[in-house]
Amino acid sequence: MVAEGLAEAGERRIGWAARAMPVLTALGERFAGERPFDGLRIAACLHVTAETAVLLGALRAGGAEIALAASNPLSTQDDVAAALETYGIAVHARAGVDRGTYYRHIHQALDISPNIVLDDGCDLVNILHTERVELLDTVAGGCEETTTGIIRLRQMASENALRFPVVAVNDTRTKRMFDNRYGTGQSTLDGIMRATNVLLAGRTVVVAGFGFCGRGVAERARGLGARVIVTEIDPVKALDATLQGYEVQPMGRAAEIGDVFVTVTGNRDVIRAEHLAAMKDGVILANAGHFDVEIDVRALEEAATAVRFGIRPNTDEYVMADGRRLLLLSEGRLVNLTAAEGHPAAVMDMSFSAQALAVAWLARSTWLAEESVRLPPGVHDVPAEIDAEVARLKLAAADVEIDTLTDAQERYLHSWRLGS
Amino acid sequence: MVAEGLAEAGERRIGWAARAMPVLTALGERFAGERPFDGLRIAACLHVTAETAVLLGALRAGGAEIALAASNPLSTQDDVAAALETYGIAVHARAGVDRGTYYRHIHQALDISPNIVLDDGCDLVNILHTERVELLDTVAGGCEETTTGIIRLRQMASENALRFPVVAVNDTRTKRMFDNRYGTGQSTLDGIMRATNVLLAGRTVVVAGFGFCGRGVAERARGLGARVIVTEIDPVKALDATLQGYEVQPMGRAAEIGDVFVTVTGNRDVIRAEHLAAMKDGVILANAGHFDVEIDVRALEEAATAVRFGIRPNTDEYVMADGRRLLLLSEGRLVNLTAAEGHPAAVMDMSFSAQALAVAWLARSTWLAEESVRLPPGVHDVPAEIDAEVARLKLAAADVEIDTLTDAQERYLHSWRLGS
Amino acid sequence: MVAEGLAEAGERRIGWAARAMPVLTALGERFAGERPFDGLRIAACLHVTAETAVLLGALRAGGAEIALAASNPLSTQDDVAAALETYGIAVHARAGVDRGTYYRHIHQALDISPNIVLDDGCDLVNILHTERVELLDTVAGGCEETTTGIIRLRQMASENALRFPVVAVNDTRTKRMFDNRYGTGQSTLDGIMRATNVLLAGRTVVVAGFGFCGRGVAERARGLGARVIVTEIDPVKALDATLQGYEVQPMGRAAEIGDVFVTVTGNRDVIRAEHLAAMKDGVILANAGHFDVEIDVRALEEAATAVRFGIRPNTDEYVMADGRRLLLLSEGRLVNLTAAEGHPAAVMDMSFSAQALAVAWLARSTWLAEESVRLPPGVHDVPAEIDAEVARLKLAAADVEIDTLTDAQERYLHSWRLGS
Amino acid sequence: MVAEGLAEAGERRIGWAARAMPVLTALGERFAGERPFDGLRIAACLHVTAETAVLLGALRAGGAEIALAASNPLSTQDDVAAALETYGIAVHARAGVDRGTYYRHIHQALDISPNIVLDDGCDLVNILHTERVELLDTVAGGCEETTTGIIRLRQMASENALRFPVVAVNDTRTKRMFDNRYGTGQSTLDGIMRATNVLLAGRTVVVAGFGFCGRGVAERARGLGARVIVTEIDPVKALDATLQGYEVQPMGRAAEIGDVFVTVTGNRDVIRAEHLAAMKDGVILANAGHFDVEIDVRALEEAATAVRFGIRPNTDEYVMADGRRLLLLSEGRLVNLTAAEGHPAAVMDMSFSAQALAVAWLARSTWLAEESVRLPPGVHDVPAEIDAEVARLKLAAADVEIDTLTDAQERYLHSWRLGS
Repeated sequence: MVAEGLAEAGERRIGWAARAMPVLTALGERFAGERPFDGLRIAACLHVTAETAVLLGALRAGGAEIALAASNPLSTQDDVAAALETYGIAVHARAGVDRGTYYRHIHQALDISPNIVLDDGCDLVNILHTERVELLDTVAGGCEETTTGIIRLRQMASENALRFPVVAVNDTRTKRMFDNRYGTGQSTLDGIMRATNVLLAGRTVVVAGFGFCGRGVAERARGLGARVIVTEIDPVKALDATLQGYEVQPMGRAAEIGDVFVTVTGNRDVIRAEHLAAMKDGVILANAGHFDVEIDVRALEEAATAVRFGIRPNTDEYVMADGRRLLLLSEGRLVNLTAAEGHPAAVMDMSFSAQALAVAWLARSTWLAEESVRLPPGVHDVPAEIDAEVARLKLAAADVEIDTLTDAQERYLHSWRLGS
Repeated sequence: MVAEGLAEAGERRIGWAARAMPVLTALGERFAGERPFDGLRIAACLHVTAETAVLLGALRAGGAEIALAASNPLSTQDDVAAALETYGIAVHARAGVDRGTYYRHIHQALDISPNIVLDDGCDLVNILHTERVELLDTVAGGCEETTTGIIRLRQMASENALRFPVVAVNDTRTKRMFDNRYGTGQSTLDGIMRATNVLLAGRTVVVAGFGFCGRGVAERARGLGARVIVTEIDPVKALDATLQGYEVQPMGRAAEIGDVFVTVTGNRDVIRAEHLAAMKDGVILANAGHFDVEIDVRALEEAATAVRFGIRPNTDEYVMADGRRLLLLSEGRLVNLTAAEGHPAAVMDMSFSAQALAVAWLARSTWLAEESVRLPPGVHDVPAEIDAEVARLKLAAADVEIDTLTDAQERYLHSWRLGS
Repeated sequence: MVAEGLAEAGERRIGWAARAMPVLTALGERFAGERPFDGLRIAACLHVTAETAVLLGALRAGGAEIALAASNPLSTQDDVAAALETYGIAVHARAGVDRGTYYRHIHQALDISPNIVLDDGCDLVNILHTERVELLDTVAGGCEETTTGIIRLRQMASENALRFPVVAVNDTRTKRMFDNRYGTGQSTLDGIMRATNVLLAGRTVVVAGFGFCGRGVAERARGLGARVIVTEIDPVKALDATLQGYEVQPMGRAAEIGDVFVTVTGNRDVIRAEHLAAMKDGVILANAGHFDVEIDVRALEEAATAVRFGIRPNTDEYVMADGRRLLLLSEGRLVNLTAAEGHPAAVMDMSFSAQALAVAWLARSTWLAEESVRLPPGVHDVPAEIDAEVARLKLAAADVEIDTLTDAQERYLHSWRLGS
Repeated sequence: MVAEGLAEAGERRIGWAARAMPVLTALGERFAGERPFDGLRIAACLHVTAETAVLLGALRAGGAEIALAASNPLSTQDDVAAALETYGIAVHARAGVDRGTYYRHIHQALDISPNIVLDDGCDLVNILHTERVELLDTVAGGCEETTTGIIRLRQMASENALRFPVVAVNDTRTKRMFDNRYGTGQSTLDGIMRATNVLLAGRTVVVAGFGFCGRGVAERARGLGARVIVTEIDPVKALDATLQGYEVQPMGRAAEIGDVFVTVTGNRDVIRAEHLAAMKDGVILANAGHFDVEIDVRALEEAATAVRFGIRPNTDEYVMADGRRLLLLSEGRLVNLTAAEGHPAAVMDMSFSAQALAVAWLARSTWLAEESVRLPPGVHDVPAEIDAEVARLKLAAADVEIDTLTDAQERYLHSWRLGS
């Protein structure tokens, strides 16, 4: 009875998300007609959210058998998990489970003996290659959602350790440009505002990392009236930040100036003991990059003489020996997922539509297809045509029309012999 | 026991606000030393929030006896109300009360027989001049917070109906430039995101009204990646909007294009039946201007064939006869107060500090002072020096230094005889 | 023959300006029909530019007899002066004249024995009150264009030295919001780019003064990709700058960081010897505020061991003893007038239309009118209705429509008795 | 004597450019020491500007023998050409030559029998492969500057027609991100302002094409206060534009709305007869994309009943049969090169430094080097390390410091085995 209510709540939540996901909804209808995934088994390790549910619903409509584990126990929406069960999807996820249960859930999802895997951070693929090698033979391919996951996969590939083709869903133009920039940008600031209600106008926001996520966070912080300082390790990105009018400084100096810090580097210990020691009273520390490692929370705990947990929702106050108070949001975990609601559904519509089309492409391009141009093991880009199709459908859903090349233009563009 | 817990929760909330209100905190300490309000009775009709509590705490520290009613039952934070009682302030407010109780609370606050009144929308002053005229003789002056309140007061003054001097706290540069623009700007978008989690990038946001509030909302919507259309009735403001790169259209046309509508005009029926009829499926309707009259909710109710209340927190879905679904936030009430948390404390720090200084100025400039330059009845501007003092304290709190005129510059600026 | 060619060139230039000035053109046609200035003598001390010519043409079409001197010899366009003579206007102006001639020209313009004076910086009014007092009796009123002029006039008025009413054309919302902000903003950056071709993206631009001009310069510098630092003496303006995301610093510190400096304060010696000493090699110094006094050019000359004049058009290089090279634009005079072309005509359309309507209002409101409500001596605001009319005409010219209040809204807005 | 004066003027201009090109200057000094180009013959077809001179000076300092033709006769600075002769470079270029002379100059430059070619638009490489095939055997490699050139080269490569390796200098992150975006962005708006002095605030600017150039133009137009409409043929770019808050429309509709049109597509006939017919009176037409083909000038000529050439510098007015006047800038040629001064030197510093390093890399990676990893014929990316080195030098020149990875971070980033 309670479980039933939970599933209904999840269903309402999924319905809300679906209305902002017209592209994925349309793809689901197409798959339901074409059944491209009949007989296919998919193991997924993804954030268990309403938007993920719309994706899996579309794949399920296309005939796939699916098992799901959570890629982050903090982001699991239990009502959505319950609703997914009613779709006939095996869900191994529950909000707030400990590390051991987290990994056990991944193993359980793998028990489906997948043909295709969907991963978000490379944990499932990692376990597959280390602890569940017996399953590798029947895996035809996979998709990976995140930049950090791709880095790990490329490393595996360069060591010839990766045993099947993986599509770098994260590396589509759609995903990087839209999901990372616009989705992470808005939801990170949203999370900070929900957690602290801080006025951003006039504050100094330090953004660590100027990749697509960092760019999005910097744009939104500036758009809310903040002065933005960027830290980087890559000179090209650093130069780009200066040309966009941002100040660029080493973290050692920015630490003394910032009011709000956001880490989006994909690396660990970006804010370390020496930075914490230099910060002003009342600063806000948030991570929107990678797990909970970007801010050295242990160093914060060691430096603090007292902690007041939950001073606001998702906000803990660490009191330093000298009386300064540092506010850590969401325990250093992804603030946009925990303090806000993650990417708006409209963003996930694009990246998850690309992912749905990538799964269909894998089904056509691996040994799953009878006569295919087989993809070799390794990390593969999403074909540009998938990007274009997603964008085309998205524009159409928003009633935006664009131009098409005339024949003369088509000819001009492609023939070098026409001269100039 | 329960009440005690409520007061503690309120106290924690007030403490959080106070740390973002360094100017008002400093003024409270100054008042505690100087006791400028000893023997003074204040009746206040204000939003019962943590920030208001810091203001009243500062006035109480200066010796005032205070009675408080809520200026809007939807914004009342019951825990803050409980905490205020522990300060020795008489609080007549409870979240969600009906219209009758709302007015009864104002009467109860007036029972203190105030020397000074603090109003937010002119309801308390209105009742004082119509139903409680017996109290007028001992009222030395008042403050009004809102633009709409000031309009009503000026009308009263022009009809010689206003019986005491009122300081237009809303008309300080500090209040208009900062509170309306930056506070309303951020909190309105914050409220819309919390209520709907909509991705603003790429959406068309229609902002009705380009006063300081509208300007703030437009800036933040643009800063979050939206295309912004402004509607106005004042040609100068409309022209200014175009020069800032906004499109300006009549609402009749904007209604067909917008994805999100925000009313901030201070007037009624800005979005009417004919506009509702023209809107797209899925639009979001929010008001951040004036009570609940800017969107004609009755017209919406009449046009709808079904309503699904609470489809998300603070979000009701109205289904039209033709199947279109319109989402009304916060029942058309102030979305920044109800779906978000109102102005960030840092904003209220400025306007409430100006208000605190205005009360001190009233105490020095009315019959309350023994030998004063008495202010006549009417609407009075806040002296520029109060603005400057608030700004000076605020900059100091943020460690921002500015220049001062050299003697030569001072002379140059003021003497026309020096020629050029 | 040569003069004729000059007048033709001026006429072509005026024609170009006129096409971007639809409001003033329409007013000229209205005046030609109504002849409101028949018998009126006007002495004007204005920048002798194509846009001024369109203004004077409109007044002349309305029947006025006009004498014109230049308000700045550097901005005089000799071809426009020649063309104006063909309109029957007495022009006393020539590009690049010395100080003595500059003042002699003003005296010559005054020789017309004006009924109305148009001033830009208060020099003409000043001379009228000190050296030409015999003309004062027949002066009915005047208009002043600039902020600094108004300051001088208010000082005169406070000393009871001002003998006739002057309309503060500069203080219209139209003028401050549009002319100062958008006109000075664009033309200042335009002048800097023409003079130096500097890439502004990634540069640090220091804007001294955050009045309307400074705000415009800061916005455009930021819009071109620069990091902007603001210096101020007014705490309220400084605070506003921080809330718009700008850094605020004292000039002493900004001098060490900036790549480009723009003064727009209306005061003298804003950049002084101690600042020049602290600057980096290669910095650019530009003034868009007031005459040539904001940058202490004498201090620059004294500190330099060598000067290379005209290293680029309007650019002189000062070589310091330590080898640093500082680039002074336009000899410290108004960079937007000298290195660029001053306000775009579209901007002047608004402020000059307000001025034309203000002259008509003076003609109706002083002893010039038979039965008028006479304006007393002193500085007077432009009536709000003039602003509104200009804005209304400007929007119409751009095909922008706005809303009008419904009767219910009109009632709601004005009657406090309706309650809430 | 005259020639001498010309060379001196060119030298002064080059000196001015060089001071904004610290990276290229530093590379020139490095090359002078290492002499990596001793014995190397280079034929270049580039814009003959001061910045190009600094590039060629650096290569010459490194020992190269150089012959130069102009890639566009309209951009040739004759004084710079004269100065380059004094460096010992053979210059075949003169401003404003006709088509025949243009091609003859390219042939003359090829007469040097180059080992390395530098091209800007692929004309030189094209001629080499069609009319001068006898020279191909001794060409080791080349560089191409432009997107359109690269498209032509890739087409050649796909047809196996390209006979040597060409480095796509245009495709460096540095070039696309900085040169195209920031350089073209600023200089295009600069050119429009110099040609017309139009106020951009409040105007509707239509940007055709949202590649890096179009993005830069759109950003600057918005930064100057314009409302920006984007037209595109690529759905992904179109979607990105909407997510950045721009309106996206087909040109057919934008033509009716725009005040200023800028083409940056790299294609022909982007603005055609049907668009010209729909435009408003007084619109401004500018091209910053590709040669003079993006605006169909012939269609404009055919539709016009009269033309007034040079109504302003670089501005011709076409009067349509219905009286509308369309303003064509720079005859439809690159407005940023003709009406302004092309990319600011600071931009060229980056792309030309990449080019200088690419030439050094070609010298090390082709048969020119004794034992090299030979590059095969085809289009090659610039090695990422060249980008990084340019960026590093540029940041250093601007005193900007960035972070470096700690050892722990380095390990974390690269090892997938560490898990998460």
